[in-house]
Amino acid sequence: MTTRIFTAGLVVIGDEILSGRTHDKNIAQVASWLQVQGIRLAEVRVVPDVTARIVAAVNALRAENDYLFTTGGIGPTHDDITVDAVAEALGVAVVVHPEARAILERYYADKGGLNEGRLRMARVPEGGELIPNRMSGAPGIRLGNIFLMAGVPHITAGMLDALTGQLEGGAPLLSETIGGFIPESEVAGLLRDTEKAHPDCQIGSYPFFKDGRVGANFVIRSTDAAALAECSRALCDGLSAAGFAWEPGGIAPR
Amino acid sequence: MTTRIFTAGLVVIGDEILSGRTHDKNIAQVASWLQVQGIRLAEVRVVPDVTARIVAAVNALRAENDYLFTTGGIGPTHDDITVDAVAEALGVAVVVHPEARAILERYYADKGGLNEGRLRMARVPEGGELIPNRMSGAPGIRLGNIFLMAGVPHITAGMLDALTGQLEGGAPLLSETIGGFIPESEVAGLLRDTEKAHPDCQIGSYPFFKDGRVGANFVIRSTDAAALAECSRALCDGLSAAGFAWEPGGIAPR
Repeated sequence: MTTRIFTAGLVVIGDEILSGRTHDKNIAQVASWLQVQGIRLAEVRVVPDVTARIVAAVNALRAENDYLFTTGGIGPTHDDITVDAVAEALGVAVVVHPEARAILERYYADKGGLNEGRLRMARVPEGGELIPNRMSGAPGIRLGNIFLMAGVPHITAGMLDALTGQLEGGAPLLSETIGGFIPESEVAGLLRDTEKAHPDCQIGSYPFFKDGRVGANFVIRSTDAAALAECSRALCDGLSAAGFAWEPGGIAPR
Repeated sequence: MTTRIFTAGLVVIGDEILSGRTHDKNIAQVASWLQVQGIRLAEVRVVPDVTARIVAAVNALRAENDYLFTTGGIGPTHDDITVDAVAEALGVAVVVHPEARAILERYYADKGGLNEGRLRMARVPEGGELIPNRMSGAPGIRLGNIFLMAGVPHITAGMLDALTGQLEGGAPLLSETIGGFIPESEVAGLLRDTEKAHPDCQIGSYPFFKDGRVGANFVIRSTDAAALAECSRALCDGLSAAGFAWEPGGIAPR
């Protein structure tokens, strides 16, 4: 089965991630959301709040992928430079979006009104449309296949929700997980041979330690449901034949 | 004060991160560890288990930085291809490291002995030295300024621990955090002006939502302790003058 595969790149913008101060949650949530849209996250780059670094990452990943997402740097403060950097990457001007301005005027009407910082959040690269933000007024921005989203994870979640079903994707990547207290080093050959015998599937092996024992979850992935089922069955049979107990759905680590 | 700034790049390798199945914990722990070594994490790239993509990321980030770290893909299974990819990136052969082989022989002596999969973990790019792994036998690998580490976070933690103090770094980046239930959009001008008045410092603004209220933590960073203290004091004074209450150390979100 040959299907067009749609891919996306993600640029995570923020010194706070690179300093270790903030633990990123956007990679996982964007990745999971993309899976459901039938789009594969092909690469993530985490870059600091430096215009040239954002421009380079945006241009590299948008050239290689169908879609580009960014998280972070669209707030009201001086270190929020994503809009300017993406405009520079695209070679377009930065303009105040009238609808964004109106949204922010309403949102801040009883909170002291617009000021210079708040007005920053109405700025978009020319041609940008708005992605609704139910949480805090300031919208995300869509420019064709480029999506600029918030850094705060639950705001990004709302923006992703607003985009659900809006993007063209391919067949979603399906997966099945099988796990057990099985040292992966004892079944490496079985995993490799099973994958080789099922060319429409990939098998990933993810070791864990739980209650002082080693184990692994094996994730079989395919866009073809029948191939996936067949490969999963073959792996289960192989594990049983080798004397290992396994559980469908895998073992939750810790 | 001018000091040499040491930087590092990190390549996180693994389909499981890009599918959203596994939430990465290595970015934050490598970032925090590097801070203490006086090394700045300049960029992270998350790439899939595909040789060409690992090679490209490794070569890009090692060219731009003093150090390069990788996490993931050094286990016993067929999807563990980091050693081969890094060898290809460097243009060197893959060889079995005698000490790694001896370590694995001892580790697996009462667990069925070495097999093909386990022996995979003794392979290193030619010239590689070992990074001890107290947790599970299989060592990490050091090649000059390149460090190949595990994907399982607590194993990586042990490898980082073994490297503590071994790498040349510059002055560590110091930081102070001030936080409060302060809408960042009301102090954006103050933050910008305070940063501008203290050229040896950067100020980051990180909004949060807690108990239904908005707030922000402001992180002042500098390699110069005196400049840091002065800038922090100026920001505190400015917040107080604007009528905002703030707390040293910041507010823990949620």
